[in-house]
Amino acid sequence: AQSSVTIYGLFNVAVMKSNSGTANITQLVPGAAGNIWEMRQFGTSRLGFRGNEDLGGGMSAQFTMEHRFNPDDGAQNNASSFWSGRSFVQLTQAGVGSIYLGRDYTPIFWVQLKTDPFGNDGLAQSGSAATYAGYTTPASPAALGGARAPNSIGFVSASFGGFVGRATVALSEGTQTGRIMGLAGEYTAGPLYAGVGYETVKDGVADGLGLVNVGVSYDFGVAKVMGYYGRSQTRTAGTTRGENTNHVWALGGTAKVGPGLAKAMYYKIDPRFANNTRQKLGLGYDYLLSKRTNLYVEAAFGKEDARTNKNAYGFGVKHTF
Amino acid sequence: AQSSVTIYGLFNVAVMKSNSGTANITQLVPGAAGNIWEMRQFGTSRLGFRGNEDLGGGMSAQFTMEHRFNPDDGAQNNASSFWSGRSFVQLTQAGVGSIYLGRDYTPIFWVQLKTDPFGNDGLAQSGSAATYAGYTTPASPAALGGARAPNSIGFVSASFGGFVGRATVALSEGTQTGRIMGLAGEYTAGPLYAGVGYETVKDGVADGLGLVNVGVSYDFGVAKVMGYYGRSQTRTAGTTRGENTNHVWALGGTAKVGPGLAKAMYYKIDPRFANNTRQKLGLGYDYLLSKRTNLYVEAAFGKEDARTNKNAYGFGVKHTF
Amino acid sequence: AQSSVTIYGLFNVAVMKSNSGTANITQLVPGAAGNIWEMRQFGTSRLGFRGNEDLGGGMSAQFTMEHRFNPDDGAQNNASSFWSGRSFVQLTQAGVGSIYLGRDYTPIFWVQLKTDPFGNDGLAQSGSAATYAGYTTPASPAALGGARAPNSIGFVSASFGGFVGRATVALSEGTQTGRIMGLAGEYTAGPLYAGVGYETVKDGVADGLGLVNVGVSYDFGVAKVMGYYGRSQTRTAGTTRGENTNHVWALGGTAKVGPGLAKAMYYKIDPRFANNTRQKLGLGYDYLLSKRTNLYVEAAFGKEDARTNKNAYGFGVKHTF
Repeated sequence: AQSSVTIYGLFNVAVMKSNSGTANITQLVPGAAGNIWEMRQFGTSRLGFRGNEDLGGGMSAQFTMEHRFNPDDGAQNNASSFWSGRSFVQLTQAGVGSIYLGRDYTPIFWVQLKTDPFGNDGLAQSGSAATYAGYTTPASPAALGGARAPNSIGFVSASFGGFVGRATVALSEGTQTGRIMGLAGEYTAGPLYAGVGYETVKDGVADGLGLVNVGVSYDFGVAKVMGYYGRSQTRTAGTTRGENTNHVWALGGTAKVGPGLAKAMYYKIDPRFANNTRQKLGLGYDYLLSKRTNLYVEAAFGKEDARTNKNAYGFGVKHTF
Repeated sequence: AQSSVTIYGLFNVAVMKSNSGTANITQLVPGAAGNIWEMRQFGTSRLGFRGNEDLGGGMSAQFTMEHRFNPDDGAQNNASSFWSGRSFVQLTQAGVGSIYLGRDYTPIFWVQLKTDPFGNDGLAQSGSAATYAGYTTPASPAALGGARAPNSIGFVSASFGGFVGRATVALSEGTQTGRIMGLAGEYTAGPLYAGVGYETVKDGVADGLGLVNVGVSYDFGVAKVMGYYGRSQTRTAGTTRGENTNHVWALGGTAKVGPGLAKAMYYKIDPRFANNTRQKLGLGYDYLLSKRTNLYVEAAFGKEDARTNKNAYGFGVKHTF
Repeated sequence: AQSSVTIYGLFNVAVMKSNSGTANITQLVPGAAGNIWEMRQFGTSRLGFRGNEDLGGGMSAQFTMEHRFNPDDGAQNNASSFWSGRSFVQLTQAGVGSIYLGRDYTPIFWVQLKTDPFGNDGLAQSGSAATYAGYTTPASPAALGGARAPNSIGFVSASFGGFVGRATVALSEGTQTGRIMGLAGEYTAGPLYAGVGYETVKDGVADGLGLVNVGVSYDFGVAKVMGYYGRSQTRTAGTTRGENTNHVWALGGTAKVGPGLAKAMYYKIDPRFANNTRQKLGLGYDYLLSKRTNLYVEAAFGKEDARTNKNAYGFGVKHTF
């Protein structure tokens, strides 16, 4: 039961420029002004602490606390949550699974992450903001939401013949919040990954909102191909349950090209009513200096009904420790 | 004089429920709503860094900086002070004692802590908020107060035949603050602990407020018994010095039962004037997975003149690293 | 490419008193009230993480993230930037130099720092606030400014026969900011250090503001002597470019005296128009307990046209880890 704390983290800093188009190409890095060179992070930089304790009999305890920050100015990324990345304590029984308590990703996130060639990094990513099709995990306070939920009690199974199950309940806290229930099943066999996720809100405030998503990837060796589909229930004030049913499709892949990795992604979101179909093409190339450090270039092209085309490009460095 | 930094910390997360009673059973975890299951921390989770440097001749230097956070959402616990737990630098002469400068607990805290069977953790604790009998260490800014004082110059003696003395002056800073003077004497001999503490405020703003406390514990082997008495001077706006003299009694203990530790505590506060006597009974059981990790259940029952009974229960996990 | 993270930091806490004089003796620790003893930090206390990765072929990657805090109350020093000290990722080619991206000091800082006997610490320092002669590196948000710039792309050369060059561009971000260009050349040969720096703002908002500075130091063995000159362009609202040209001279030194180090510094700022010439004399003595830990005393005496003399003194402890 000796203490052992591991420090880990990531710096991801880029210089980018975009035109002044109005199409929403989530995740163009938020706040980027048009037509000037700016320094932005292309993935949330982080500093984390984690530990493991062997409790005997196949049982163990873990903790993870992960801070997110903006390396360009040194500010914490989420003003409401210093440890906004992850903050949980976990008990694990080998061959069965883990139960965790705290703040972490909800199950649908993992299905989305593993079929996004950019891994939710950079301006070329599809990213959970788009591939959740307008649905956002509720949270308290609101600023803590997104792909994670505070107040979570979660279970992640061990791998049973390549199958892993996930289940989470995120408890309410006061009235501005949502009790979330989430499920996911993931299957990995050699080059194949397939996952399906489900999340719904039940707390009398945002009942019925949620997301179903499906993701598949296959690694052909020279290239890895990824497909994703999501169907969300969202709502604007005063509307009925499930009035907005949005669909999103994404297709992407990565390929080893020369000394690095080429990446491409395309998605299309088709909300139910409005004339607001949105498309984005993202391209990128990572030049690997080591397993931990790479230089990259990225470009993104967005199109949206009734808006002008938006494009952006940038280059940067990603360093993991 | 080689640098050596130790990382330490604690996760303490629980799920709890309380009824809608109105009695104040400090420390029912603040903000807990009635009649719903909520995730709360039962002791402030923390991440700390500390180091020691041997200066030769029995002299050494230490530092401690201890961050407190809420693991359920990843937010820092005290919005005004990231290192709200402890933040001091210290010089130690072996056989004499230590002088520290910075933010730390005042002497009365240690007498209270060592005679609280719950160690100021969880909803069943008596805790300094109750056992200070309404007195709160002033601080600048106010949000930094409680059991600690910023701007402290403190001395902790070495052990002289089991006796340890403590003395602190916490300097004022502007007008909204209080210069605190605190003293404590602690005696430990085998199974016996006895402590007495004193704190008073002298800055022309809150003069005469303070606390005297006495605590005793005795470890009989199968069980440890603890007794505590505190007498505070508090004041509400417009009243004369010492108008409110509050008394608090607490009795508690811990016992090894099966694979864990049972805990119980009872306190009664009797403020001088108003019809507002308050009582609380706290019960708990720790199931030890290791020296560093345990599961627990706790329950608390509160009664207060002119208010309805309040009770609460919860279970959780505590993991130290 | 193995990960290796180094933790480092500093506690610097002092107790000080000043009279109620009105002369501005920057850096008298900000906010210090007159005629009472107060606890203050005499150099921003810090906790940092840094790492290095060998990429082969003389190439390597580094990161540094440095938090600044106030040890007297545990609060972060800069409310807008947790990692306000430094926050950058860097690529280095041995024999050529390093390129970094993020938040760091601008080139003029290093010329100033290396010719300040107090190293920008304590109430007796000249410090960049004075020796920049009223010029402050713009930043976004403003609170992030001072001697550092966010959004920096910088280059630091390797040493070529004792000569090191520095160049930085700090990109704008929105309208309240400034694109900075900075240069410095530094030469070190045995006991001699000589540096010259230049910084200017070009973004259509604060165009033409800037600083030229020159610093020299020579180590005679028993004592080290330092001289500094700075010429700034500053402006108040509604005035023309370069209307205020300020000059600052500083002279200082350090000497080994007994078991410690004596320090002295004098500066004089002569702004162009107003009757506001300002002078300061700073004195200090460090008693070294080890290479990492010292006790110190400091005093400062300030004089300013049309104001009453200000003086201050204090003592404290500085502990590096």
